[in-house]
Amino acid sequence: MSNQINEYIEKNKDRFLNELFELLRIPSVSADPKYKGDVNKTADVIKQKLVEAGADNVEICKTAGYPIVYGEKIIDTKLPTILVYGHYDVQPADPLELWTSGPFEPVIKKTELHPQGAIFARGSCDDKGQMYMHVKAFELMMKTNSLPCNIKFMIEGEEEVGSSNLATFVKQNKEKLKADVIVISDTGIIANDIPSITVGLRGLSYVEVEVTGPNRDLHSGLYGGAVANPINILCEMIAKMKDDKNHITIPGFYDDVEILSAEERAEMAKAPFSLDEYKKALDLSDIHGEDGFTTNERNSIRPTLDVNGIWGGYTGEGAKTVIASKAYAKISMRLVPHQNSDKVTALFKNYFESIAPKSVKVKVTPHHGGEPVVTPSTSAAYKAASKAMETTFGKKPVPVRSGGSIPIVAMFKSELGLDSVLMGFGLDSDAIHSPNEHFGVFNYLKGIETIPHFFKNYAELSK
Amino acid sequence: MSNQINEYIEKNKDRFLNELFELLRIPSVSADPKYKGDVNKTADVIKQKLVEAGADNVEICKTAGYPIVYGEKIIDTKLPTILVYGHYDVQPADPLELWTSGPFEPVIKKTELHPQGAIFARGSCDDKGQMYMHVKAFELMMKTNSLPCNIKFMIEGEEEVGSSNLATFVKQNKEKLKADVIVISDTGIIANDIPSITVGLRGLSYVEVEVTGPNRDLHSGLYGGAVANPINILCEMIAKMKDDKNHITIPGFYDDVEILSAEERAEMAKAPFSLDEYKKALDLSDIHGEDGFTTNERNSIRPTLDVNGIWGGYTGEGAKTVIASKAYAKISMRLVPHQNSDKVTALFKNYFESIAPKSVKVKVTPHHGGEPVVTPSTSAAYKAASKAMETTFGKKPVPVRSGGSIPIVAMFKSELGLDSVLMGFGLDSDAIHSPNEHFGVFNYLKGIETIPHFFKNYAELSK
Repeated sequence: MSNQINEYIEKNKDRFLNELFELLRIPSVSADPKYKGDVNKTADVIKQKLVEAGADNVEICKTAGYPIVYGEKIIDTKLPTILVYGHYDVQPADPLELWTSGPFEPVIKKTELHPQGAIFARGSCDDKGQMYMHVKAFELMMKTNSLPCNIKFMIEGEEEVGSSNLATFVKQNKEKLKADVIVISDTGIIANDIPSITVGLRGLSYVEVEVTGPNRDLHSGLYGGAVANPINILCEMIAKMKDDKNHITIPGFYDDVEILSAEERAEMAKAPFSLDEYKKALDLSDIHGEDGFTTNERNSIRPTLDVNGIWGGYTGEGAKTVIASKAYAKISMRLVPHQNSDKVTALFKNYFESIAPKSVKVKVTPHHGGEPVVTPSTSAAYKAASKAMETTFGKKPVPVRSGGSIPIVAMFKSELGLDSVLMGFGLDSDAIHSPNEHFGVFNYLKGIETIPHFFKNYAELSK
Repeated sequence: MSNQINEYIEKNKDRFLNELFELLRIPSVSADPKYKGDVNKTADVIKQKLVEAGADNVEICKTAGYPIVYGEKIIDTKLPTILVYGHYDVQPADPLELWTSGPFEPVIKKTELHPQGAIFARGSCDDKGQMYMHVKAFELMMKTNSLPCNIKFMIEGEEEVGSSNLATFVKQNKEKLKADVIVISDTGIIANDIPSITVGLRGLSYVEVEVTGPNRDLHSGLYGGAVANPINILCEMIAKMKDDKNHITIPGFYDDVEILSAEERAEMAKAPFSLDEYKKALDLSDIHGEDGFTTNERNSIRPTLDVNGIWGGYTGEGAKTVIASKAYAKISMRLVPHQNSDKVTALFKNYFESIAPKSVKVKVTPHHGGEPVVTPSTSAAYKAASKAMETTFGKKPVPVRSGGSIPIVAMFKSELGLDSVLMGFGLDSDAIHSPNEHFGVFNYLKGIETIPHFFKNYAELSK
């Protein structure tokens, strides 16, 4: 079987790349309304590609936001069904000036970690490239008559803005989405020679805060010292959210946090990791984080509070002596099992309001959230994925907990009763959500190669 | 004499307003290079207006930045000479969306404090309107043959960006600028029925800071908790610059601060002021400032530290889960006698660098500064101004210390040996440096009326 897969990929790889390039050229930024037409256009292209690959009943399912592309191939209702989830929307590309080539002008460039070249473009790794691996692997199985079980596709366009309408769609389409397992490629591997499968994800609580001082911008000479400056106050409030050991100070924040045993932490510590290389890769003189935890623990089993954006006052060239009327920040908290997103958002709001001095008004607006998850590494799906990666990488993958969030994994479990297997092929260094996002050509093709093995293994293990 | 002045103003006031409107329509924003042509054009218009008013030797004096417009009328070298300083550049107009009419489309609207109407436009009060009062008062004295002494004009175009090239110009033109006193209208009065003259100004130290964490923007899921977030760190550092009594914590910051006696503070406390009205006008639930000082003390005799702008990370619509590589702030400190701007800037830089955790890199860039001043209220020029205002307002003006900064006043003293008299006609509520800046029609015409009296009084008192 491996031969057939590899031959097909070898013969078609240039086309596989060109088709992905075509997708990457459409700026499907879901966070910015000005790209509305492009986001919708991307859904149309995905639909067309699913049809061409051989899917049936392909449709653009309308939602209150961006549509979900659905498609399926039911070869035998007695066989197991794998539901593929992915997303066609991408993060905003700014700051644009830091891209070395256009974010929507995909190009292959070699990097230290990708000596065979990587595709540079917004969405190359997250998630157009990884989502499209499944479309091409499906095409491969169809054209080589090797699809071993049923397949369904659910590709959404609002993942980067909190999948606001996905839960409703899932609730309203339980029969259509009936499956045995969900497979998602929106995570990564440790390195191209150290495959891994994600077995845990952090949750998310994302809020926007606004601090209002005087009712208008003021001259800092005439008023400075005598009125609350909302930027200074916002900084002081943000500073108060952590103590000098970098523990988050929101009352109740840690109440539900899962505490790992010494054995579990010792097991985690075995994962290959070099602190020196980590610091060197990010040009950091020192690491920074919660006292009492290692770097790998800080970004996986511990919750966080990060300001993702801040703005207020004069930010143009030169100097302006103004006291702004308002200051703003976007703040997100990553959550771990068994924290609850709504609960943490409420704790944040209460605390933020409680520490505001009387001289300002504050507003907290929840953006979106998601629940943390741990997926079972004992399931048939996990075993099928592990065996597939072992075949294609020549090495058994390591189970790891990731610091990222895919909030819909918990929702799929609660609404559809389905576990997900998180079989991603990106690298941490692929700069997703950053300028110069890229995805290794090796990784893209390795994904297309691995997926048919996963399908075959899963069909066999489900017998 | 009053009759002649008032008749001339009555006859020409519409033209006086129209000519000011013409000036206000040119967006002479010195902080933003895109307005370069407009700033230069404004200098040309001022030159033309001085020529028309009757000035001699009018010229556009080149500097390394924007030019200085010079003009003079020497009627008798034995008579005293008054040097008029003003500036034709304006603050940036943003945030544009908060203006109720275009910042460069002057229009007269009535307000509570300006029942006769006020001119709404960027620069109407600061300083085109106040500077142009002098041009029109000069025209009046020329056309009515009442100029009682020599006059020189020095109108610059870089006041809002720190008058970077003025000191060099002054040093190179000491003979040309020889005078007995300088008059500046770039300050305000307490109210239209409570005239006042500014006798003290705060100094300024303005810096821009940059905090760098990782060498690129990172995904907050994959890295959050394990690397220094430069925005969180910047907030923590800004918070550390004040203690819980709102005292500034920079070591040595208060060393040179002039401490007023109980008598002096009691004298200050006699100035008319309503805390309730102050809070109401700014829609503040509570005031905020340094413990142990009143509102009027906080914004005049005490130094401050205000963040004038802050930015970093994702500030667009929606949510982006990013850890920014860099965060920035513009921070200014208002200084009081006998603080020194360069010294305070150095103290700030040392402290800011000393409190930075090892996990980030910081950079402090000084923007511009200026020294605090107290001008003598016993001089002939002060008496001349006081008597002029008493004539035109019907009330003796109150001497006040302002919280604002006109850094060039200290420079004029040290370079030219000249005192300045700060005879301004704006109101604190005129929203200079803010959206909807305006200048009362009453105030504009009252300025044109008062200035010839000041000239006459000064000539007489100098005999």
